[in-house]
Amino acid sequence: WTTAVSVIKCRAAVAWEPSKPLVMEEIEVAPPQAHEIRIKIVATGVCHTDLYHLFEGKHKDGFPCVLGHEGAGIVESVGSEVTKFNPGDKVIPLFISQCGQCRFCKSPKTNLCEKGWYDVMSESDTRFTCKGKKVLQFMGTSTFSEYTVVNEIAVAKIHPSAPLDKVCLLGCGVATGYGAALNTAKVEPGSTCAVFGLGAVGLAAVMGCKNAGAKRIIAIDINPTKYEKAKVFGATEFVNPKDHNKPISQVLHEMTNGGVDFSLECVGSVARSALESCVKGWGVSVLVGWTDMDDFAARPIQLIAGRTWKGSLFGGFKSKDGVPKLVNEYLEKKVKLDEFVTHNMTLAQVNDAIQLMQTGDCIRSVLSVALQ
Amino acid sequence: WTTAVSVIKCRAAVAWEPSKPLVMEEIEVAPPQAHEIRIKIVATGVCHTDLYHLFEGKHKDGFPCVLGHEGAGIVESVGSEVTKFNPGDKVIPLFISQCGQCRFCKSPKTNLCEKGWYDVMSESDTRFTCKGKKVLQFMGTSTFSEYTVVNEIAVAKIHPSAPLDKVCLLGCGVATGYGAALNTAKVEPGSTCAVFGLGAVGLAAVMGCKNAGAKRIIAIDINPTKYEKAKVFGATEFVNPKDHNKPISQVLHEMTNGGVDFSLECVGSVARSALESCVKGWGVSVLVGWTDMDDFAARPIQLIAGRTWKGSLFGGFKSKDGVPKLVNEYLEKKVKLDEFVTHNMTLAQVNDAIQLMQTGDCIRSVLSVALQ
Repeated sequence: WTTAVSVIKCRAAVAWEPSKPLVMEEIEVAPPQAHEIRIKIVATGVCHTDLYHLFEGKHKDGFPCVLGHEGAGIVESVGSEVTKFNPGDKVIPLFISQCGQCRFCKSPKTNLCEKGWYDVMSESDTRFTCKGKKVLQFMGTSTFSEYTVVNEIAVAKIHPSAPLDKVCLLGCGVATGYGAALNTAKVEPGSTCAVFGLGAVGLAAVMGCKNAGAKRIIAIDINPTKYEKAKVFGATEFVNPKDHNKPISQVLHEMTNGGVDFSLECVGSVARSALESCVKGWGVSVLVGWTDMDDFAARPIQLIAGRTWKGSLFGGFKSKDGVPKLVNEYLEKKVKLDEFVTHNMTLAQVNDAIQLMQTGDCIRSVLSVALQ
Repeated sequence: WTTAVSVIKCRAAVAWEPSKPLVMEEIEVAPPQAHEIRIKIVATGVCHTDLYHLFEGKHKDGFPCVLGHEGAGIVESVGSEVTKFNPGDKVIPLFISQCGQCRFCKSPKTNLCEKGWYDVMSESDTRFTCKGKKVLQFMGTSTFSEYTVVNEIAVAKIHPSAPLDKVCLLGCGVATGYGAALNTAKVEPGSTCAVFGLGAVGLAAVMGCKNAGAKRIIAIDINPTKYEKAKVFGATEFVNPKDHNKPISQVLHEMTNGGVDFSLECVGSVARSALESCVKGWGVSVLVGWTDMDDFAARPIQLIAGRTWKGSLFGGFKSKDGVPKLVNEYLEKKVKLDEFVTHNMTLAQVNDAIQLMQTGDCIRSVLSVALQ
């Protein structure tokens, strides 16, 4: 391995301030320090969490920054003390670290890491500058840049034959939905499931239910153009809440003799409906993905009658362990990725990709970043 | 066995209307019909759920009724088709049935019964009359009467040497709290637990945590006179939220390096605090007991960070299977009951017992009903 010494000048999409379009700029990327890895980003997805920070973030001090956290790339250089990565390795940067040493990493019950989500290469510690100003990193990753620097505890080395413009989706959205079904809900063979919201996370949850052996997978969205895609991932039935003049939970109770075994809330605003759609006694409802704008709520009897309310980050996958396995499952055709990609664009078109996501006209846009 | 034919005239405490004192009356108790059992009630506890119906019940059509659902007694006679009970058997009436045939009874995941909670001998079907009026049964049981009639799927036959004035508490409160820790939270050896609220249900939850092998059991109540009692059941630490000028969840996080492994909400109004007191990653919070007055709520990140919110009725015990085992555990001194009883009174003093409960000056009052 080699220790990098030089600053790299490269192109990045900089978010100078909230709610404004990103601006393609030349930035400087410092060499990786001890335990850090400098990565050439080859491809990146655009995720709602990027938009959340840009449009809904409450802290103006989170700017300027480089967004993007669903990327894949190639190791350019490594800092001192890095022994398990070499230049040329294909990698996926991780917004949840896995230090392997803390009480969370040592527990089989969780994929959180004491080093923290956001704590590694967080807002307060960045390797980016632009026009003489410090530019912050986002979620410890910042994949809307040709080069980024990430701590080795937040990088997964993946199979050398993995196509980076597909497996980048395992850096967030697909892993999140797929794992929510498998790891968090622990969907059981023969069960009945409901998935609320058919964006990338919801479709990945459908795929998780299917791979777990669910018998019925009811896909729910107010946009019926999503149903064909949901069928590809394994959905067996489709419900548009707008087609009914009664609560969706009642519709589902009637369809399923009292409620579904598992519900996955991939919308961010229908937690109550998702819980109430579950059967009493053993129904499990999972909050998937990231939202923290408002309280969620329910009547106590919903839980007292035996339902369970859960949630997870990154689908409950321990990040460094899980992502390489998911990449292998894609290569073995157990996990679909190509079907999520509705648009291929370049980093320079990132604002168009953001707009597509806002209007719901895409599942996932994948941006090519640096040439491989 | 014998088929009873005669109506019994006996004493009962009748709730004629909401929020008014109960009135001792002579009532008529019809013979048990097919699959029913007429029980002489020897002793009964007074539970908050009785008060809830009396004072907070929203339906005026739940009156007149005979309250009480935490009793124990002796089989007086059985209806046709009853083969597993005989006059003289010691029994505990159950407000959750266990028919043994339905999909809930056949699942190891739940203690609910398709026959329903309240559905067996419910408001619409009663064996009581008083002064020519139909008097409703409460929670399928009605133990504030010298005699009551219960369907056989809602009666547990217990050990003949069980003292009825103690084991009656296993008909609701003690089983509810104890099982919430063991069956619902599934408290683990060496874990750290918090119990919110130190009434009978909360103290039983403390006992459940202790018997499950918890290392630290933090007992929380705004009434410090409860701490000595909590220590008897196994609490290791005590916190009075009134002693702190910061949220109780923050106090607990500081005491436990980031939160407790399990929290049990036995108050009915502090669900958010109980959840937030749990450690991220694997913390489990359980709503214990019965309340459905208001929504409970939290921020999504509480679940997304890996916490689980659960609840249970009757501590998750399958009623006919569980109660006889709990009675045996009491006889083997694995489960404490005597320590819950702070007052012994007669059924005629039921209004005094209700008042003691309202002011928090008792743990459990046990009323003697019919002479054994």
